[in-house]
Amino acid sequence: MTDSPIPTNAPRPVIALGADHAGYPLKARIQALLEAAGYPLLDCGTFDTAPVDYPDFAAKVADAVGGGQARFGIVFCGTGIGVSIAANRDPRIRCALAHDTTTARLGREHNDANVLALGARTTGFAEAEDAVHAFLDAQFQGGRHIPRVEKLGRALIERI
Amino acid sequence: MTDSPIPTNAPRPVIALGADHAGYPLKARIQALLEAAGYPLLDCGTFDTAPVDYPDFAAKVADAVGGGQARFGIVFCGTGIGVSIAANRDPRIRCALAHDTTTARLGREHNDANVLALGARTTGFAEAEDAVHAFLDAQFQGGRHIPRVEKLGRALIERI
Repeated sequence: MTDSPIPTNAPRPVIALGADHAGYPLKARIQALLEAAGYPLLDCGTFDTAPVDYPDFAAKVADAVGGGQARFGIVFCGTGIGVSIAANRDPRIRCALAHDTTTARLGREHNDANVLALGARTTGFAEAEDAVHAFLDAQFQGGRHIPRVEKLGRALIERI
Repeated sequence: MTDSPIPTNAPRPVIALGADHAGYPLKARIQALLEAAGYPLLDCGTFDTAPVDYPDFAAKVADAVGGGQARFGIVFCGTGIGVSIAANRDPRIRCALAHDTTTARLGREHNDANVLALGARTTGFAEAEDAVHAFLDAQFQGGRHIPRVEKLGRALIERI
């Protein structure tokens, strides 16, 4: 018997976190949330609010998830737009930009998203926390969504 | 003197539109909005609500914008997530998934987005119409955003 909120038969997957300076405050908040919930974290930075370039940190998270060091990633910038563009450059990544629980959940259920993007300046702390839980608790629905997701893996860059 | 709302000294840029079956109703609505405003349109389909795969239609819009046939693109699916992932596979594209005027405007101002993604099942018609106007009326701010946008053009795929 234990007071831990984590069932011993349900180990938490590793989550990679990455943000630019605008996203850092929300990353710190989500980091605390996930640590309290028992998720092992891989913090890809940035680590303060000094200006940096969001593509660099989205790339670190994409590498962590694409390379198998983390099961999921969460990326943050002011709007979530910049990091979502950057993460989706990597054909191993399906990054869902969400602004509430519904879009976060549907990103997992329909698109098998392995990275969640959040806007630190456009989504409130409480909505973002709920969106993270919705994303991590949802399951890909498979079925008719499978061939569509497979097409996302064949990068359009091949056609240029 | 004319009743036209379009100043003759401000020709409208060509806009490419693309949607899956879930996004089709919003595409039809935005198509009517933009036609009334005098924008030349390139309709990449789909043309009804029969099920299709969203990556195919995002690819058509990406090719139209990346190839110069259209200045901007707007892509639609249920949440906007699937089409935004697909469009951003193309390194010529910076696709901003927006759910209101603020995120649509910031996608242009900060990320120099050339494609807007909207969720037909998660964003109302009125919000979507306002977001389209905000996107098309905004200007890229340049400055500190330039080197970040340039990094988006160097696809992460190169690093795999």
